[in-house]
Amino acid sequence: MPAYILTLQCPDTTGIIHAMTGSLLAMDANILEQEQFSDLQTGQFFARTRFEAAVDDVDGIRNALTDAMAAFSPQLRLRLESAHRRALIMVSQYDHCLLDVLYRWSAGELPLDIVGVVSNHQTCRPIAERYGLPFAYLPVTSQTKAEQEGRLLAMVRDEAVDLVVLARYMQILSEDACQALSGRVINIHHSFLPGFKGARPYHQAYERGVKLIGATAHFVTSDLDEGPIIEQQVARVNHVATPEALAEVGRDVERLALSRAVRLFAEDRVFLNHQRTVVFGS
Amino acid sequence: MPAYILTLQCPDTTGIIHAMTGSLLAMDANILEQEQFSDLQTGQFFARTRFEAAVDDVDGIRNALTDAMAAFSPQLRLRLESAHRRALIMVSQYDHCLLDVLYRWSAGELPLDIVGVVSNHQTCRPIAERYGLPFAYLPVTSQTKAEQEGRLLAMVRDEAVDLVVLARYMQILSEDACQALSGRVINIHHSFLPGFKGARPYHQAYERGVKLIGATAHFVTSDLDEGPIIEQQVARVNHVATPEALAEVGRDVERLALSRAVRLFAEDRVFLNHQRTVVFGS
Amino acid sequence: MPAYILTLQCPDTTGIIHAMTGSLLAMDANILEQEQFSDLQTGQFFARTRFEAAVDDVDGIRNALTDAMAAFSPQLRLRLESAHRRALIMVSQYDHCLLDVLYRWSAGELPLDIVGVVSNHQTCRPIAERYGLPFAYLPVTSQTKAEQEGRLLAMVRDEAVDLVVLARYMQILSEDACQALSGRVINIHHSFLPGFKGARPYHQAYERGVKLIGATAHFVTSDLDEGPIIEQQVARVNHVATPEALAEVGRDVERLALSRAVRLFAEDRVFLNHQRTVVFGS
Amino acid sequence: MPAYILTLQCPDTTGIIHAMTGSLLAMDANILEQEQFSDLQTGQFFARTRFEAAVDDVDGIRNALTDAMAAFSPQLRLRLESAHRRALIMVSQYDHCLLDVLYRWSAGELPLDIVGVVSNHQTCRPIAERYGLPFAYLPVTSQTKAEQEGRLLAMVRDEAVDLVVLARYMQILSEDACQALSGRVINIHHSFLPGFKGARPYHQAYERGVKLIGATAHFVTSDLDEGPIIEQQVARVNHVATPEALAEVGRDVERLALSRAVRLFAEDRVFLNHQRTVVFGS
Repeated sequence: MPAYILTLQCPDTTGIIHAMTGSLLAMDANILEQEQFSDLQTGQFFARTRFEAAVDDVDGIRNALTDAMAAFSPQLRLRLESAHRRALIMVSQYDHCLLDVLYRWSAGELPLDIVGVVSNHQTCRPIAERYGLPFAYLPVTSQTKAEQEGRLLAMVRDEAVDLVVLARYMQILSEDACQALSGRVINIHHSFLPGFKGARPYHQAYERGVKLIGATAHFVTSDLDEGPIIEQQVARVNHVATPEALAEVGRDVERLALSRAVRLFAEDRVFLNHQRTVVFGS
Repeated sequence: MPAYILTLQCPDTTGIIHAMTGSLLAMDANILEQEQFSDLQTGQFFARTRFEAAVDDVDGIRNALTDAMAAFSPQLRLRLESAHRRALIMVSQYDHCLLDVLYRWSAGELPLDIVGVVSNHQTCRPIAERYGLPFAYLPVTSQTKAEQEGRLLAMVRDEAVDLVVLARYMQILSEDACQALSGRVINIHHSFLPGFKGARPYHQAYERGVKLIGATAHFVTSDLDEGPIIEQQVARVNHVATPEALAEVGRDVERLALSRAVRLFAEDRVFLNHQRTVVFGS
Repeated sequence: MPAYILTLQCPDTTGIIHAMTGSLLAMDANILEQEQFSDLQTGQFFARTRFEAAVDDVDGIRNALTDAMAAFSPQLRLRLESAHRRALIMVSQYDHCLLDVLYRWSAGELPLDIVGVVSNHQTCRPIAERYGLPFAYLPVTSQTKAEQEGRLLAMVRDEAVDLVVLARYMQILSEDACQALSGRVINIHHSFLPGFKGARPYHQAYERGVKLIGATAHFVTSDLDEGPIIEQQVARVNHVATPEALAEVGRDVERLALSRAVRLFAEDRVFLNHQRTVVFGS
Repeated sequence: MPAYILTLQCPDTTGIIHAMTGSLLAMDANILEQEQFSDLQTGQFFARTRFEAAVDDVDGIRNALTDAMAAFSPQLRLRLESAHRRALIMVSQYDHCLLDVLYRWSAGELPLDIVGVVSNHQTCRPIAERYGLPFAYLPVTSQTKAEQEGRLLAMVRDEAVDLVVLARYMQILSEDACQALSGRVINIHHSFLPGFKGARPYHQAYERGVKLIGATAHFVTSDLDEGPIIEQQVARVNHVATPEALAEVGRDVERLALSRAVRLFAEDRVFLNHQRTVVFGS
């Protein structure tokens, strides 16, 4: 039987789960996983349901669910689990996050269709090619930034990209690009945000003498390093570590935080909740 | 409005959540938290729901739910959230776990009614008295073990105890006592089970040269140190640590693992699932 | 044989350890532990040595070491291990850090002489008294702050206090007090500094939606929440946690970070190194 | 100036560091890092020193140190830091540990000369070739095991291999091979030893219902899964995880534990101490 993933978001009230499960029951669907959360502060309700149904008809099921839940005016998304989200990876010259994402993808750990790798450098071309992925070289200067982002946005549109992964992409997206891609860009920042925003966070961490080093995967907004956090990881360090040693330890937490965030997104477990996120199963 | 905690366990099939939420909707209840899990290996379904209802009638609500769900033959438990589980603490001479449980309890972190402290030593009497708790001194020898356990079981029955916490109680319960209290006794073992079962686990850990030290909170069964695990914690150590230093570091993870397990039980988040547990929100 | 703890700090050059070990060898001392660190950035050398010697003469040994090492102009400190550092604990109304420090102290885990507890509230008096410690109630208003700090400084002087522990003391020390006690005051800040400086850090953390919650033990300087960091701890949280739940989880990492920092200080393992610290054995 | 790494092991007594630092001082060497440990249980002394000297003469310096320290009959090893340890990697079909070791090596994180990859399968040949490494296919059956190990030992001898890394090599080395390579083979076992020795540890962990999953890097001895432990890592899991999900989470801790152990060995930080290890800087 085909499996489906349903996500729901609406104002919290009574009867939401009952309506949803009633609609699934009417089509003889079998719930495999379900998670929900009522945010008492914002009054929002969030749910994710994974179910099997005998019929292979995503539009029909979506229509039935939409009708059954009309009273709640939900943001409702349904897809076949096998119809993977489509992702584009962006990278500059540091390759550790790219390699980690591609390795996990090739090992079947990331249920994503990766449509290609984009970079402002040629450095990572061989890695993309080894995995049989298209590599687009989009160099950028302050003069060409608007044009380069135009090409990126065209690619996102043409390839129906659901997720742009900034795997240590060292350019700041313009406010327009951030708007156009809102909720669809995940960045890895190499610090435990909100500590050490901006450039050279490992040098900042060294100067401050912290005893734990971190990395933060977050949605990108036009407010630099302030987007909603999806995942964070830390590792212990001590006074012996130079900024270079911090960066080296940091690479382990960077790839772990980014790959986990990408996977959570790929499985439709991440919801935006104003400046925060709801993340099921994290 | 009063809040209720409902737990359910039954063979997995379709319609369970729909029936349950339908019954709650019919009584205008408002779901605050809900978690469920279908174990595809064992075919068991588990759920915990916390809800508010206008009526203050636990028996009436329980009857309504029982009727609505009769087709599923569930193990169904319902209580007012304010009607705390009742716990008895057992301890020998090490007091760190007892102190941690009592501190968290007095700080409002453990929603339990603690009915008393039982010990085979007088050492911890002042601690119990400081918290205004009855202290029962039940010494035990191989000759008096059956009688001592008889007094313990009488206390459990008379005080309607839901949970016995072995907070470093250094006596092994008899097979009869384990049977009588099945699913109601949580022990803290001072190792990362299944490593280092039995006596002197920190000495065993030292001999083996492990680099992480652990503690395990588990349900007690007649199979020593083999009961279903509820919570585990670890801490890093190195070659410098003597067995005594391991024990000292270990005390931190012991109290954390035990207090978390007790809290999870107190909030009705722990289910037995054959030799394993389902633990919501851990 | 009596054990001694020697600490050294001086500009880094060749021959320091050789001179020190030569002096110890000449007095037939037996080195039990030794750690040293050369900071290549600042050119400073740090060492801590624990040794046994047949003679019980701290002044004689100190003079011998001072003579032997005169060429290096070190900051040299020597004490009998049994001549504990003297500590004063300050607290306001939250008692979890105070209780943790006092419990570990009474269990022999903190080799300190605690001379008393000072508070701007009466709340914690019974705790101090239970441990047989003098309790000084020093209330403070903006008008009386100078006078109150004067009494505090007098107490530090009269009792020869080496360490003031701010165990959730909610008043900010004046610049004068910070200067007078420089390098001798350890505070616990309830966030992962440098994130969430200032007031209500758990509310800040909630707003920012972080996935890990932290605590930082640091030396107090007149630059609020910017003093050199000694120890940090974190715990995982998710979207379900309210600010109150973050605070509750946070209490576990607060007491752990503070107690570890106090212990490291008590064992003479902590050195100031400009805005950073050197911490042996952490 | 060239940097050297010196390691020492001998019965603990007074004067060892003084003699060593005296010899270094006589040759105007500058100590960059030094660590030592006296095991009071076994009476053994261990030290690692990294120093710079004006002369580029490893034999001359070794002779001088050997003379200076003759009274202590130490196991003394000295090498230029740039004269890397030589390693051979063995793998079967799971490639995640191999890829991690090779990535870190190519990124300059593992100061090793890797002389080749050996496998009983052809699966990982392309990975070895991508990194420009010789790949030896040494299939093995119970009939050919002695011959296959003979070829392996010849390779170790001919290539002057200091370290054999079993990066998920699924064959058990014979007792003879274990003896011949004693102290030179590091294995990654996919459990938190001593829990779950032997085959299918993730299935064992699932059956036991543990809440943390681990991996252990250890020296190989003829006593299977009982060799001295170098490094351990754990990750949190819950009741939702199937054996396959445990294995997937486990891959992260496997590669981390193995790569850290290999690096510690590569930097001469690991000492055998009977059934245990001394590991500096871990």
